[in-house]
Amino acid sequence: MNENQAFPWDHPRFRSWIGVARACQLMQQAMTRAIADLDIKTPHLDILINLYRFDGISQQELARKLLVGRSNMSMLLPQLEKRGLIERRPDAKDKRILRLSLTGSGRDLTIQAMAIQTGLIERTLSRTPEDRCLQVAEAMEDIIRILQTMEPADDADDG
Amino acid sequence: MNENQAFPWDHPRFRSWIGVARACQLMQQAMTRAIADLDIKTPHLDILINLYRFDGISQQELARKLLVGRSNMSMLLPQLEKRGLIERRPDAKDKRILRLSLTGSGRDLTIQAMAIQTGLIERTLSRTPEDRCLQVAEAMEDIIRILQTMEPADDADDG
Repeated sequence: MNENQAFPWDHPRFRSWIGVARACQLMQQAMTRAIADLDIKTPHLDILINLYRFDGISQQELARKLLVGRSNMSMLLPQLEKRGLIERRPDAKDKRILRLSLTGSGRDLTIQAMAIQTGLIERTLSRTPEDRCLQVAEAMEDIIRILQTMEPADDADDG
Repeated sequence: MNENQAFPWDHPRFRSWIGVARACQLMQQAMTRAIADLDIKTPHLDILINLYRFDGISQQELARKLLVGRSNMSMLLPQLEKRGLIERRPDAKDKRILRLSLTGSGRDLTIQAMAIQTGLIERTLSRTPEDRCLQVAEAMEDIIRILQTMEPADDADDG
């Protein structure tokens, strides 16, 4: 690009993506405030919801689902464990695999947090009709598919 | 929500939002990798692009545009200043206002980074036709408008 070319913010795809990025950022901030009373942040919530949904998931599978680097996970999981919200135990057959579960109080907190999250999303998308939601979802599926082909190899995803 | 209710991931709005959030996260990671050679991260790029676009912007206006808390800004700006990419100087009329500009090398680096960013967005949205881009942009505008009404007062946005 040289300075005689159009500015990136004049490109329709660029503008539309900037809208997506801004909406994400605002949603992230609203969510952070909404769950602050539960004394968790959004990366913790992502982990808790995955353990709620996939009880006994391995640490490696969780990292893949969350797109979180291993270094990040190794900070977040002990925080949740110390608070008694999750448990880590070796797999019955293969001791090298660590399996993760919610404790009773982790489950209670996750249910509260999911209700807050669902409420916020419902409220935020309330002016977006269902067919528009579907169009957005389809566009995102295409984008995700393309971005996934750009992902680095598994061993390098410590970002 | 009690456990007899549907899981949040069964709600159409929730599912569509999860797609948006995942696409954003993947894009962020792809962008981080794409600009790593320039030795900047995405929060630096957001600042640089804003200074490119709004030369002489005040620190306060920048913080508002970026949705970045003041504590974050006060870490990122000195990093860019030390590398000689930006300059901060008091406003000619009101010395309490700090105005920000790119240096020559900051401008060069920003132009390179914008070309990388635009290329990545074009590639990622290449399978999304322009009318679909427009539908996404419109949906995001509604979402942004609602989220903005939920924003805390200016003084409290140090998140």
